[in-house]
Amino acid sequence: MGALIADDLLFPAQAGPRGIARDLYAGVRNLPIVSPHGHTDPRWYALDQPFPDPAQLLVVPDHYIFRMLFSQGVRLEELGVPALDGSPVETDGRAIWRRFAEHYHLFRGTPTRIWLDYTFQNLFGLEMPLSARTADAYYDRIAALLATDSYRPRALFKRFNIEVIATTEGALDDLKWHRVIRESGWDGRVVTAYRPDAVVDPDFEGFAQNLDRLGEITGCDTGSWSGYLDAHRSRRAYFREFGATSSDHGHATAQTANLSTTEAEALFGRIRMGRADEGERRLFRAQMLTEMARMSLDDGLVLQIHPGSWRNHSPLMMARFGRDKGFDIPTRTDYVAALKPLLDAFGTRADLSIIVFTLDETSYARELAPLAGVYPALKLGAAWWFHDSPEGMRRFREMTTETAGFYNTVGFNDDTRAFPSIPARHDVARRVDCAFLAHLVSEHRLREDEAHELAQELAYTLAKKAYRL
Amino acid sequence: MGALIADDLLFPAQAGPRGIARDLYAGVRNLPIVSPHGHTDPRWYALDQPFPDPAQLLVVPDHYIFRMLFSQGVRLEELGVPALDGSPVETDGRAIWRRFAEHYHLFRGTPTRIWLDYTFQNLFGLEMPLSARTADAYYDRIAALLATDSYRPRALFKRFNIEVIATTEGALDDLKWHRVIRESGWDGRVVTAYRPDAVVDPDFEGFAQNLDRLGEITGCDTGSWSGYLDAHRSRRAYFREFGATSSDHGHATAQTANLSTTEAEALFGRIRMGRADEGERRLFRAQMLTEMARMSLDDGLVLQIHPGSWRNHSPLMMARFGRDKGFDIPTRTDYVAALKPLLDAFGTRADLSIIVFTLDETSYARELAPLAGVYPALKLGAAWWFHDSPEGMRRFREMTTETAGFYNTVGFNDDTRAFPSIPARHDVARRVDCAFLAHLVSEHRLREDEAHELAQELAYTLAKKAYRL
Amino acid sequence: MGALIADDLLFPAQAGPRGIARDLYAGVRNLPIVSPHGHTDPRWYALDQPFPDPAQLLVVPDHYIFRMLFSQGVRLEELGVPALDGSPVETDGRAIWRRFAEHYHLFRGTPTRIWLDYTFQNLFGLEMPLSARTADAYYDRIAALLATDSYRPRALFKRFNIEVIATTEGALDDLKWHRVIRESGWDGRVVTAYRPDAVVDPDFEGFAQNLDRLGEITGCDTGSWSGYLDAHRSRRAYFREFGATSSDHGHATAQTANLSTTEAEALFGRIRMGRADEGERRLFRAQMLTEMARMSLDDGLVLQIHPGSWRNHSPLMMARFGRDKGFDIPTRTDYVAALKPLLDAFGTRADLSIIVFTLDETSYARELAPLAGVYPALKLGAAWWFHDSPEGMRRFREMTTETAGFYNTVGFNDDTRAFPSIPARHDVARRVDCAFLAHLVSEHRLREDEAHELAQELAYTLAKKAYRL
Repeated sequence: MGALIADDLLFPAQAGPRGIARDLYAGVRNLPIVSPHGHTDPRWYALDQPFPDPAQLLVVPDHYIFRMLFSQGVRLEELGVPALDGSPVETDGRAIWRRFAEHYHLFRGTPTRIWLDYTFQNLFGLEMPLSARTADAYYDRIAALLATDSYRPRALFKRFNIEVIATTEGALDDLKWHRVIRESGWDGRVVTAYRPDAVVDPDFEGFAQNLDRLGEITGCDTGSWSGYLDAHRSRRAYFREFGATSSDHGHATAQTANLSTTEAEALFGRIRMGRADEGERRLFRAQMLTEMARMSLDDGLVLQIHPGSWRNHSPLMMARFGRDKGFDIPTRTDYVAALKPLLDAFGTRADLSIIVFTLDETSYARELAPLAGVYPALKLGAAWWFHDSPEGMRRFREMTTETAGFYNTVGFNDDTRAFPSIPARHDVARRVDCAFLAHLVSEHRLREDEAHELAQELAYTLAKKAYRL
Repeated sequence: MGALIADDLLFPAQAGPRGIARDLYAGVRNLPIVSPHGHTDPRWYALDQPFPDPAQLLVVPDHYIFRMLFSQGVRLEELGVPALDGSPVETDGRAIWRRFAEHYHLFRGTPTRIWLDYTFQNLFGLEMPLSARTADAYYDRIAALLATDSYRPRALFKRFNIEVIATTEGALDDLKWHRVIRESGWDGRVVTAYRPDAVVDPDFEGFAQNLDRLGEITGCDTGSWSGYLDAHRSRRAYFREFGATSSDHGHATAQTANLSTTEAEALFGRIRMGRADEGERRLFRAQMLTEMARMSLDDGLVLQIHPGSWRNHSPLMMARFGRDKGFDIPTRTDYVAALKPLLDAFGTRADLSIIVFTLDETSYARELAPLAGVYPALKLGAAWWFHDSPEGMRRFREMTTETAGFYNTVGFNDDTRAFPSIPARHDVARRVDCAFLAHLVSEHRLREDEAHELAQELAYTLAKKAYRL
Repeated sequence: MGALIADDLLFPAQAGPRGIARDLYAGVRNLPIVSPHGHTDPRWYALDQPFPDPAQLLVVPDHYIFRMLFSQGVRLEELGVPALDGSPVETDGRAIWRRFAEHYHLFRGTPTRIWLDYTFQNLFGLEMPLSARTADAYYDRIAALLATDSYRPRALFKRFNIEVIATTEGALDDLKWHRVIRESGWDGRVVTAYRPDAVVDPDFEGFAQNLDRLGEITGCDTGSWSGYLDAHRSRRAYFREFGATSSDHGHATAQTANLSTTEAEALFGRIRMGRADEGERRLFRAQMLTEMARMSLDDGLVLQIHPGSWRNHSPLMMARFGRDKGFDIPTRTDYVAALKPLLDAFGTRADLSIIVFTLDETSYARELAPLAGVYPALKLGAAWWFHDSPEGMRRFREMTTETAGFYNTVGFNDDTRAFPSIPARHDVARRVDCAFLAHLVSEHRLREDEAHELAQELAYTLAKKAYRL
């Protein structure tokens, strides 16, 4: 490798374990990327148009980047983040890029720094560190490359060696771009995933209208509980036509419920009329996780639960810039009581696959590993979001492996909308896992042949198996 | 050592610290085993009959093993775990063993894998890894050895170099097997421990009858608060006759209370009549921890508190297979408020010894080390259950030592009913502690002569002292 | 260095990273000490009188020391800790010192041991380990040196290379000693900090009288909400005259509130009349954090929040010995909900500086790093109190850096009243940070030139900047 990313990035400094890590990594570094959960835009693959300028591609949409700059006094307007009221923000890509470059030292010690350096070097052939001094050279080179055909989305998809990538679409999405991809005859495998938050969470903006719209799309009576469930079934089937193998649920907590049909009908009635109080709205979300699991038993979709984020923590920033502006903050999350109703119903079913993520690392050793280490329906999702980082992944392995083993985990997913960073993210995960395995081998807790097998599983096989891809 | 367990198992990979760890370990590896808390069956030592087949000895009773296999889709019936309704389960030891062997890779990275490999190698002289291919050879060899006299319980007790082992018996137990052991003239030291959950926890199955029975056994009036307390005193004295130096309490929380006698009498009245609500039942358990501490001040029994396990999380599995089937899940546990009533009463007494365990590692640095680092009555129990593992023990030391030191901890206990694994468990603990001490020495935080002293304390002396053995 | 403190103390054992750590440390070890938060007594610097005997200087006032000895059965009376009722305690310094020396092994593995050995060696030129055997030699040498002029406070201040030190005074303090220091013409920079707990917390002893006194001192009407706020403004201005750049708040939780003026007035009315219930008293404390932040926007004081300590956990010890006797125990602490009212009001202001500390390490990665990584007003205080230790600091870096970076942290502060330990504490922090940076460099996560820059920032620059010193 070059000057920004060392060959031994993230490997142990000691010769012994480092040698083992290198060997393990050599066996997995070129494996295809399986990206079973993420947020890239299917439109990119559908239209295959060039990406915009470097700032619009790499800075403006990346909440990891602008939140850090904001924390140090850079206003989002200066970074080109659009305001909801349309008031003017910076539009000059080069100006945004320079601002970013001047502050690049802020990312020291963060995964963003690694992802970016990896991308700079491996995708854009850059070798000198990014700084105020090199900002323009960076900008020019990246801009020039982005204008070439080999940097269009489909070409990058191939260059990145992506075997399959999942996007995430809302329940009301018509999956138009997925249709375009499919009809284009392109052989890249892009699948969708069913994310019904807007029609499951009564607190979601426009929930009532969303349910009306769900009824129109599906021809089901979303005024009744059974019709509403049918509408979900219908959409899930539609999503499965476009390759979906999973649903995804971003609730504030992991709370589940298992009401009787009569209770659920009555609850839905109050929800539908907009008369439900906070407890009932919470109960409804809880019940819907269980309903989704029930449907999964029929249609085979893998159920993903991503709880524990306090979305849009700052009302000021929400009002001015809207969602997803770096103000989602993790909170303490319980799983043992919360998941019990769902687990009581279906937890012992080996034909169900529920993948649970957490932003609360205290749950790894105390709750999630013990749960996933016994319930066949439950698997542990990869270290997520703020924990998708070298230390975060290391802690994940250290705190889950001894109780849940490796085989109740599901490999890595990048969970990103930052397309160019995908190879970097998978590479970091592979390196960290190889380093962890090398550590076990060097302490004689694992044989080297086993470590090679596991490196393969963690980098590739488990994700395919767990997500049924 | 042989092919399964390396000489340097769990030691640091670097030459410097590894050398120190080896030296420290050389000084403690052959120390006698002090096992102050565990669940082996005194009947084994009493009757000294041969153990059953390999599967019945090593697989069927071990919840670490069958919970992992169950999590990956193996049914407990296939593993010979008896169903409560007597419906048929696998009884062929060899078939069970093969199933286990086929899934042995699931244990990669877990302590179970180390314990088993250690046992395979050191107890049964096996050297090739267990797998589907080697399953029969394993089975045959282990079965053959178990049939020999030198693999009977008492012979193993001596071979394991056990100086003293504690079993755990319920308050109503007649300690018959302990009596047989004592009367047999055998010189192995097996002591009991007083576990009164069944007569202390109003939610325990058959609580009311248990109290009647407690009255019969002791001749005390368990219809009155003072008679009930006398009955405890009587049983504690009886247990002490059979070597007990500790009581043990497995409450769901660490809650304690310190009611006035009048309040306690009234509460007991409601409890005894079965009229107590949930809060009162909780309060009763809390009060009883304080009562036990008060009795400890008289009779010298060490008080162990093992809180924070949500027992039998799956009602389905509980109904079909009963307790202790791998469905006990840790929960968040508070100590600072919970223990306060007890500590207010007796926490500053240096003649009292309360040993607290946790399944919630977040309490180590935040609560338990600060509490044990100042209250003379309080000591920290070893890393427990899911945390009885290399990473778990390392975290325990890293998160408690700086605030509580080493001398407010009580050494290792194996807490196991898996008799053959006892040497393995103590060996792992000794190795991990030696590795931790070597780390401190290599960073010049401790002198080597101090580390040798501490290795001895952690492996042997502290347990004897803390448990008054 | 000598026999007690190795040159490579706390550096990695491996040659590669150790070499990097040494280089980094060489660049920062002699930087001046910036001590922006602590509890040394300004009277020392004002009067410059010799310190008392070794025990009175090093043992009797140090809660880290006497809590550990107490936990192992040594009574505080034997250590010379004065009882509130004036009943006799040990007064013979040598006897106290011997008792301490006999128990010095208890501190193995603790930061106290490092601080003391560092002080013994570097301040007092001692080289043999402290023990019962060497106790008298230690005592004699330290006593002799303390009697010399070069061991008086101001001489030590210079010897310690302190550029600036902050003390902490209550809102009602007349800052007499600070005045004496200023008027003495001495060039040592000693500043105060505004700690208004006694006039902000309705549960503080003598709260009502404290408010009366606050009114007298300031000439403001502390019977009214606006007068009360004016009184704070007046005191803050007074403290700023004596160099204060920060206020400090030791609330039990991090709860904040943002009431309307009308609500706040009404609440203050009930508080002032002593009629407020517990919830209202809590709300008042919460509101006052927001008021202090509002004032900070005007006068530039940095706002420090030190929540999460359950003060005086043992009523028995509180009654006999009073506050600060080692019985302050950390508790679970929430920040995401608690700080929201304050952050909603001022969190996005880049001209405000709020420094948050925690005793609950679970909040590092889950709450504090994500919050500080986006809100410009928020910075992370150093690993605090029980976590001011090698492992504690390492965990702080590992759990905050990837999300908040280094630049949202504020460097080290010693937070101590143990004046002789100040160089030791800063040295430990510098070493641990250099070791952490060396680890990043050796895994190629950071370039060496960046690590040198960061070592400087962490040891010196960030503290000056964050505290506006």
